[in-house]
Parts: sequence; structure tokens; C-alpha cells
Amino acid sequence: MMTSNHIDEIKKIVKSGRVLTDESDRFSYSFDGSFGTFLPDAVIQTKSTEELAQLVKLANREQIPVYPRGQSTSLSGGPLPVKGGMVFDLSVMDDLLEIHGEDLVAVVSPGILTANIHKAAEQKGLMYPPDPSSSHVSTIGGNMAENSGGPRGLKYGVTKDYVIGLEVITPEGEIIKTGGSTVKNVTGYDLTKLIVGSEGTLGIITKAVLRLIPKPQGSETIMAVFNSLIDAGSAISKILSSGILPSKMELMDKASIAAVENYEPLGLPLNAEAIILIELDGHPLALKDEVKQAADLCDSVGAREIRIPQNAEERAEIWKARKLVSPAIARIKPTKISEDATVPRSKIPQMCMRLQEIRDKYDVHLVVFGHAGDGNLHPNIICDKSDKEEMRRVEQAVAEIFTAAIELGGTLSGEHGIGLMKAPFMEMELGAIGLDMMKRIKESWDPNNIMNPGKIFPEPGQKLELS
Amino acid sequence: MMTSNHIDEIKKIVKSGRVLTDESDRFSYSFDGSFGTFLPDAVIQTKSTEELAQLVKLANREQIPVYPRGQSTSLSGGPLPVKGGMVFDLSVMDDLLEIHGEDLVAVVSPGILTANIHKAAEQKGLMYPPDPSSSHVSTIGGNMAENSGGPRGLKYGVTKDYVIGLEVITPEGEIIKTGGSTVKNVTGYDLTKLIVGSEGTLGIITKAVLRLIPKPQGSETIMAVFNSLIDAGSAISKILSSGILPSKMELMDKASIAAVENYEPLGLPLNAEAIILIELDGHPLALKDEVKQAADLCDSVGAREIRIPQNAEERAEIWKARKLVSPAIARIKPTKISEDATVPRSKIPQMCMRLQEIRDKYDVHLVVFGHAGDGNLHPNIICDKSDKEEMRRVEQAVAEIFTAAIELGGTLSGEHGIGLMKAPFMEMELGAIGLDMMKRIKESWDPNNIMNPGKIFPEPGQKLELS
Repeated sequence: MMTSNHIDEIKKIVKSGRVLTDESDRFSYSFDGSFGTFLPDAVIQTKSTEELAQLVKLANREQIPVYPRGQSTSLSGGPLPVKGGMVFDLSVMDDLLEIHGEDLVAVVSPGILTANIHKAAEQKGLMYPPDPSSSHVSTIGGNMAENSGGPRGLKYGVTKDYVIGLEVITPEGEIIKTGGSTVKNVTGYDLTKLIVGSEGTLGIITKAVLRLIPKPQGSETIMAVFNSLIDAGSAISKILSSGILPSKMELMDKASIAAVENYEPLGLPLNAEAIILIELDGHPLALKDEVKQAADLCDSVGAREIRIPQNAEERAEIWKARKLVSPAIARIKPTKISEDATVPRSKIPQMCMRLQEIRDKYDVHLVVFGHAGDGNLHPNIICDKSDKEEMRRVEQAVAEIFTAAIELGGTLSGEHGIGLMKAPFMEMELGAIGLDMMKRIKESWDPNNIMNPGKIFPEPGQKLELS
Repeated sequence: MMTSNHIDEIKKIVKSGRVLTDESDRFSYSFDGSFGTFLPDAVIQTKSTEELAQLVKLANREQIPVYPRGQSTSLSGGPLPVKGGMVFDLSVMDDLLEIHGEDLVAVVSPGILTANIHKAAEQKGLMYPPDPSSSHVSTIGGNMAENSGGPRGLKYGVTKDYVIGLEVITPEGEIIKTGGSTVKNVTGYDLTKLIVGSEGTLGIITKAVLRLIPKPQGSETIMAVFNSLIDAGSAISKILSSGILPSKMELMDKASIAAVENYEPLGLPLNAEAIILIELDGHPLALKDEVKQAADLCDSVGAREIRIPQNAEERAEIWKARKLVSPAIARIKPTKISEDATVPRSKIPQMCMRLQEIRDKYDVHLVVFGHAGDGNLHPNIICDKSDKEEMRRVEQAVAEIFTAAIELGGTLSGEHGIGLMKAPFMEMELGAIGLDMMKRIKESWDPNNIMNPGKIFPEPGQKLELS
């Protein structure tokens, strides 16, 4: 519990920033893109790494919980201050965005919006590949904390694959550097890749070095329409085993198509069972040939319609449909439980069947879309959190989605993180010893458990509670 | 210290394998591809994970050091049994090599030779990209322990980038699974990427899931000859910032060229200061265009000759030159100290200059070649370990190579690992606190320090000793 003495001490440390303690200010920091609200005791905004490190030292000494936070688009509760204490608003730490063209790296502050890294890299003919759908509003710091993915994960991998160096404040308030500016580095344990994806439980990232690649010279899009989800799954498999590696391969089911057309009519086929959107990138001469091959493969497994847009505007229109799924389904009912259970690619058709069974069994409004090419579907349940009876069915449906993913050889979370909601299911995937090995790392780094407590690791007896 | 009681107990556990205790057998396990010999007390060969786990439990209880070992091509002392105890010969654990085409993964035992994974993947139209030069003799287990790189690291990354799931025996003899068969997985801390590259100090890998990609449809090679190392460096920079991403970009300096021509005359230009070998891969139509672009760029910065081989045999001949550098220089003198200090790409010309200064200052026989495209050079010092005076100069030269790499923003090791020889320099790169954060992980996982002790972490006061 924080006291007024703590606040006084914090105010002495924070010379170049702001300390927010009004209830209205604190309320703005009590929620994220997931479920539940938790009021912090104080919010600190500073651009100074040294001030932050001093605050962490204070927090460690006084055992005050701290929570690093970006723009709070987290879908897993990553930044929620579940045990009170201090929220560090790192979205203000946004001064540094350097592109070092010759080294093929970017050096960035954690508060930089990911879309701005995309733009800065492109201006130099380079690309930062990870493209979470939230990139125009989410910070690179948040992306690193959660190891965000995105459609281009299929060809290019996820955030972790592009972070090669970090400056980090440890849970004891020390500033360390991990990795560096070289792509190859095997000097000791890979703390960089341990910290990326650790959801802010092992330290606060205050600077990062990101690997960039040359920007592909061109891209093409294909939209294939299917009367059967299974056929759509077959098309995905056929393309992946044909030697072509698309940059994106996204799936929208019938419910997603309907939601988007209701939200903004784009001329999508309402009576189709599934749409696949494919993006290919690379050299223009190769693209021409690969687009034809991929379209022929879709045709060979029974696509009823194939659209190949002929210019950038038409391409943008097609991708708009995919981008609108999330906002469109959010309109249907007030609460959206967005999951990211992921299965081996070959299990996508089976996972789709399991999801349909779960939808019917618990009578929930389930929408399925996502990154089918890498097995990372997004089953979303649209519900109303004020309806307790419905939420109990949702709880059961969510638990069964996790079980299905693990039974099919998959994982609880592909790109959103564990956070609060999935913590009770960790042992189901990892086993007691696997989870214990993770906890040992946490305890050895953060003996007072002040760094984003309540995330990843379940409390004894913790269960999923949405009702 | 192991007793005859320990050996008896080991023999009771090992029902399906062999326990070697003869001095001649143990001697075969006392060295690797680096420096120094250390005799183990016993060597165990078994294909059974359960037996190995029981042996580790015994070792943990009795505080006996254990050392996992593949084919011992390590250039950093990774498998050396520096404190006696048990060596586990995992090269015998070679039963499993499955390619799951639809999931784009391979599932392998640690004793499989990496070249056999390459072959098995290619037979299904797929590729396992990491290609350490030792791949025809080194095991995937060893590659994972050291996070091996290779020429294709430039475009495709290193071993760690392709390992997505592991079965591991912990230092306390428990069997855990990390990650899985999905490319996206953010369920808790990334133990997979922590263990890969931890040089066998955190556990024994008994099975792995590797990510594969579609095999590129074609490849082309360019050899460019330069009268100046600086011009060669400029060519590399120009190509990397042109939008082309070669699959390999290798450098050979004058001394490497001479060594190879002495070893096996291949018609290399003996009076050139540097050769760059470039490989491009991808769609044949794109390749044709990119080869011309890359050749023109080399020409524009003053290449005196550009060779573009016209068929597979000619291409193989050119790459043979690069492959022969290591065996060729090993002929010059009996001892070869092979380093892999790595710098940001833009610092390659400066690093080349620093290496020339070090060569002259300490009057050592220094040969420079390696993966210039990703900043990972291989300065090799050719010497004679029986010449104590020479070895003292080599010690100083090696220390100064490390200093130079770190001063230029680079790292001690790009792909060989820290092992024994580089341990004394860890704090120079990481700082005391950075190193302590690594050590905390080690101690929390291996409280009795039985798992490959003496590696990565320096002993108090430890110095580089070659003389």
C-alpha cells in the first residue's frame, strides 16, 4: 500500500516529468484492451531512464508494485495495475527513432508508435516486418513486452525475431544492456529474447535496437472465396507446400464477413463460408508468376471466386475488409473476448471444427478470423459482461478453446500474451515443472515480486472469472 | 570426484547403452575443436532420455559435473569436461528425423548431423536455413547448444531463429517441454530461446522441433575481386542498402586466398587484397535481375574482376574456395585460434583496419575471412602452442581483438559461443550487473552447478591462458 510519504519521495525523484494522483487521472490508467479495471495509486510520466531506475529502486525497497505501460491496447491485461502501486506511462518516452541504414537497424524509445517505425524504415528503403493490427496505436515497448505478431508473421516472424539489443531497468532498479547492434551474438544467455515477451515482469525496456530488412520491391494480393471452411484450409496447406511463402495469409469466416458487411458494405460475398486473403511480396518478376500459381492452387481446391486487384487502391480496399473485422464485431455486443490460441498449421481445419462445436455447445456468438497461414486463429466471443448467465457460458467456452488448442499440439497464446486471463491455464500447457522453471527466473530477478505482479503466473487456486 | 560406487550406480541405470571408463576411451572425449584437453571420469552413451534423466538426478544428488556432447567440433570449448565427471555422448541419440511437410517443421534427435536435416528437408521441397560450415560433421544438438550461425545467417538468421520447441532434461533431472510446433507462441517466458545458445549449462536437449521454410527455387553466385579491402567493404555496404538481400556474402583476405591456393590451386587471384563471394537465392526471374544489379554495384566501387559462374559445377568450385580456408590455414602451423568477434555491419572496414594493426603490433600470423555481410568476421591466428613466447603474443592479440570488437559496438562472439576461452572477457562486454543477471538464471536452475560447469561464467580472477 502506498502512503503519502511514498508520493512525496516519488515527487522528489521525478524532476523532469509528472506524477498523477488525482482519481480521474488514475482512472484513465485502470484499464486496457482486455477485461476488468484496476486503479493504480499513482501514475508517473517521465522521459528519464535514470528517474525511472530510481523509482524502481524505491519500489523495490518499499515493495510497491510497478507496471510499465504503453498505449494499453493489450488484449491480455498486460499493463493492468492489478495490485495497486505505480503505473509508469512509457508512451511519453518517445524521443528516439533513428534508422541506421548501413547497419540495417533502428534504435528506438519504447513510446514510439510501431507504425512510425514502419514509416521511418520505408523512407530509407527498409522494412520493420512485425505488423500487429494495432500498429497505428500501439507502442513498440508494448509490442516487445507481449512479443506481438501480426499477419506478416507467416513469412517474417514476430517482434522477438527483430529485437537484437535492449536497455532495461531491472526489478532492482539497475540499468543493463542486453545484446547489441549485431544480428549474430552468442555472448552468454540471450537476455534480449527472454525479456521480449516477458510481459513486463522481468524489467522495463527503455531503449531497443531493432533489425531491419530491405523493403520488398513489390506486393500483390489475392482474395479467394470458398463455400467450405475445409476447402479454404486445403488451399492454405497447398500454397504453403508449393514452395511459395506468402507474406500474409488471412482467413475470415462467415460470421466475420457478415459483421464487416453490416458495419461497412464492401461487396463481400455474404453467402460464402470463408474468404482467404493472400499477400505475396518480393521482386515484381517473381510476383507475377507466383500470383498465378497461388490463384491456380486456390482454383484447384474449389475456390468459387478469385479476385486479383489490379492497383494499390483495389488492394487497400481488400485489406480494409480484414482490418474492419475487429471494430465490426465490437459493434454487435458490448464485450469482446479476443483469443489467440494457436495450433500447428496442419491442424487448422480440425481447430475450426472444434470451434464450431464449442460455439454450438455453449451457445455463444463466436467469430473466427486470423492468421491462418501460421496457425494463429483469433476466435472472438461477442457477449455482454452485464449478463452473468451468458458470461458463465463464455467462461466455459474460453476454457474449452484453450483445451482444444493444447490437445491439437498448440498453445494458449500465439501473440497476445498470457496476462491475467490465461494465467490459470499455464500449468495445463507447461506442466508443474515447466512452469516452476519459469518462476525460478522471475524470483531470481525480482525477489520482491514488484515488477508487473499478477501476470503470467497464476495465484494458487486462480480460475478464469468473467462473470 | 567420482568413486567406483558412482560407476556401479551408473551401470545400474544405463541398461540400453554403454558406460566407458577405460583411459583410452576417456581420452577420445577429452578435447574438441578448440584448445586444451581435460579427461572425464566416465563417458555414457545411451539413446534413452529416461536413463539420461536418472543419471542427471544422480549427478545432482552427488554433485558430479556432467557435460552434454555432440561431435565436439566446438571452437570455444563447449563440451570440454573441465572439472571431470561424466560426459554424455549425445551423438548416439540419432534415431529421430521427421519432416512434417504440412506443418513446415522437422522433429529431430540431438545426435542427427545437421547436413542430414538439410537433405531430408530438401527432399520435401523445404529448407532448414542455418548452415554452419561444420554441418556435415556437427550435430544439431551441438548447433543448438552454441546457437550456430553460418553464411546464410545474413538472410536467414541463426539456429535459434529456427528452433521452436524442445524436450530438455533440467539440471535436476526433470524432463520438461518448451515451446512446441507453432511458430507463434507467447505462453510464458521463452525457455526455448534461453536454452538454445546456453552452451549446455541449463540442461540437456533430447529432442527439438525446427521450423522449415519453402526451398528457394534457384540460386546464383558472384565472385568479385578487389585491390583494396576497403573497396570490398564498400561493395558489401552498397549491396545491402540497394534493396537486395543476398543469402550469403563472404569475405576472403589476401592471406586466406594465399593459404587456399597453397593447399589446392583453384586459380584464385593471388595478388588481390580481397575477394567477396555472393550468393543470391529466390525466384529465377528475380535472380537474373538481381545478379546484374549486384555485379554492377561491385563494378561501381572498383572491383577489378567479376566472375559469374554459369552452372552448378562452376558455382560449387567457387564455394569450395571458401570452404577450404579453414583446412588450408590449419596446415600452416599446428595451432589455430579461431575467433568470431562480430561488429555492426557498417564497422567492417574499421574492424579490418584494427585487425591489421593487431597483426603487426604482436607479429602474429593473422588470417581474416568470414561472414562479412552480417559483420561476423573470423580472424584466425595460426601459431604453435609449443612455442610459449609466440603464444604469449597470441594471448595479447586475442584480448585486443575482443577489445576492438566491443569498442566498435560489437560482441565477443557471433556464433562460436563463449565456452572457456572468452569467459574472462564477459564482464568487459556485459558489465558486472549484466553478467550477474545471467548468473542468477544459472543458479536458480542449477543450484549445485553440475551442468557443464566452467563455461560462460568466469572463475574469480580467470585470465586467458594459451601459453
